[in-house]
Amino acid sequence: MSLQVLPISGIPEIKTGDVLSEIILKALEENNLSLQDEDILVLAQKIVSKAEGRFVNLTTVTPSAKAYEYAEITQKDPRFIELVLRESRSVLRCRLGTIIVEHRNGFVCANAGIDHSNVRGPWGNSEDWVLLLPEDADSSARVIRDQVFQKTQKRIGVMIIDSHGRAWRMGTVGVAIGLAGVPGLVDLRGKPDLYGYRLRITMIGAADELAAAASLVMGQADEGTPVVLVRGFPYPLRESSIQELIRPKELDLFR
Amino acid sequence: MSLQVLPISGIPEIKTGDVLSEIILKALEENNLSLQDEDILVLAQKIVSKAEGRFVNLTTVTPSAKAYEYAEITQKDPRFIELVLRESRSVLRCRLGTIIVEHRNGFVCANAGIDHSNVRGPWGNSEDWVLLLPEDADSSARVIRDQVFQKTQKRIGVMIIDSHGRAWRMGTVGVAIGLAGVPGLVDLRGKPDLYGYRLRITMIGAADELAAAASLVMGQADEGTPVVLVRGFPYPLRESSIQELIRPKELDLFR
Repeated sequence: MSLQVLPISGIPEIKTGDVLSEIILKALEENNLSLQDEDILVLAQKIVSKAEGRFVNLTTVTPSAKAYEYAEITQKDPRFIELVLRESRSVLRCRLGTIIVEHRNGFVCANAGIDHSNVRGPWGNSEDWVLLLPEDADSSARVIRDQVFQKTQKRIGVMIIDSHGRAWRMGTVGVAIGLAGVPGLVDLRGKPDLYGYRLRITMIGAADELAAAASLVMGQADEGTPVVLVRGFPYPLRESSIQELIRPKELDLFR
Repeated sequence: MSLQVLPISGIPEIKTGDVLSEIILKALEENNLSLQDEDILVLAQKIVSKAEGRFVNLTTVTPSAKAYEYAEITQKDPRFIELVLRESRSVLRCRLGTIIVEHRNGFVCANAGIDHSNVRGPWGNSEDWVLLLPEDADSSARVIRDQVFQKTQKRIGVMIIDSHGRAWRMGTVGVAIGLAGVPGLVDLRGKPDLYGYRLRITMIGAADELAAAASLVMGQADEGTPVVLVRGFPYPLRESSIQELIRPKELDLFR
């Protein structure tokens, strides 16, 4: 089956309190698309954070001593660093221009996913505003999926994605940060291979592969296409969580 | 524009010396697909390696002292480890069951990409055979692209992909290991953001995002769908190399 990744045009600028499921269903209609069972909606993190009002004005933030330390190393705004630390469990690496952390929700990323570009505050324009990741992106995804089901009776998956840098390779790629219905991992371990004489050992990071595909179509999310519809995802939908995709510390050779 | 990732069915078991461009063009015809300019063909590494005869029989390999050392740590076959070391520039991590290296071609991966499962030797069935990555996957991709152009006059991109594990996250994802015409990175640095007051700093790992999408459709490559056709890649094709995607050591905090 072929995989189709369809950009949904016409999503307006999202504001705090907006109900994303309604906005997306309206946009789908305007795009002459109707949802089918097993479809997946992929949302850029930014619109979810905006709808949830995850804006913070830096002028309200008082940096800790630790934040001043990391700000000195990174040469970033200590108030920004303070928010990064509050959103994180631990700091993995800190260098000029870069702070890599373990986010509260478990995944590793730069700046705890806090976004400084393209952020206008909830009530106007200012460079002082930043945008945190959703409080709990799995939960955000589930709410949207359940609202879509209530309104359409369609059993779809919803995934929230962000762009992350990587060890070893240049360039950011889309990765999942919240899942509802989309399997994070597909476990092929123990299945016989093509010739039947060796058991396979692969777990596929299926949600991240899909996130990358969606990210490609979004380009720079928030530049107009923060929602895409995926049709033809090759694995059955099931209950899931981003926690599946997080490598336990004791299995991680690169912390 | 929507992204379509189309599996090409009917690719036969590939043998040393097979001309992949001919086999793929024939399969496209049988799938009622005709190539268009800007299409991209994505190939699983395994069929390229097989066509290039990159089989090695372990019984012909004499392990070095170093190979015995790493074999002891990993509890892998010393002959296999010897091949891993020959295919690598350096060893990043070595633990029970795992050896992560910098491959000759620059990228970081487990086992130097050498495959032990699903490998039958060129002349029959044996567990002693392994399959190395293509000697130079960029060059392999270019040859196929140029042959396709000669036969169809279509200007397409060709990409060779493999599945890699990752730091921090569970599950393998498709990544590019050889590029012809497909941009590895798309550089958005210096472009103004949506509100025009901040310059963006993003480089998108576009080829890897596409590799992940293709990998999703291939499932476990070699289980029947080692070639996919991509239509609607959102960036213009240009000359490229996998080297774009390799993070220089001095910019890599996770070596």
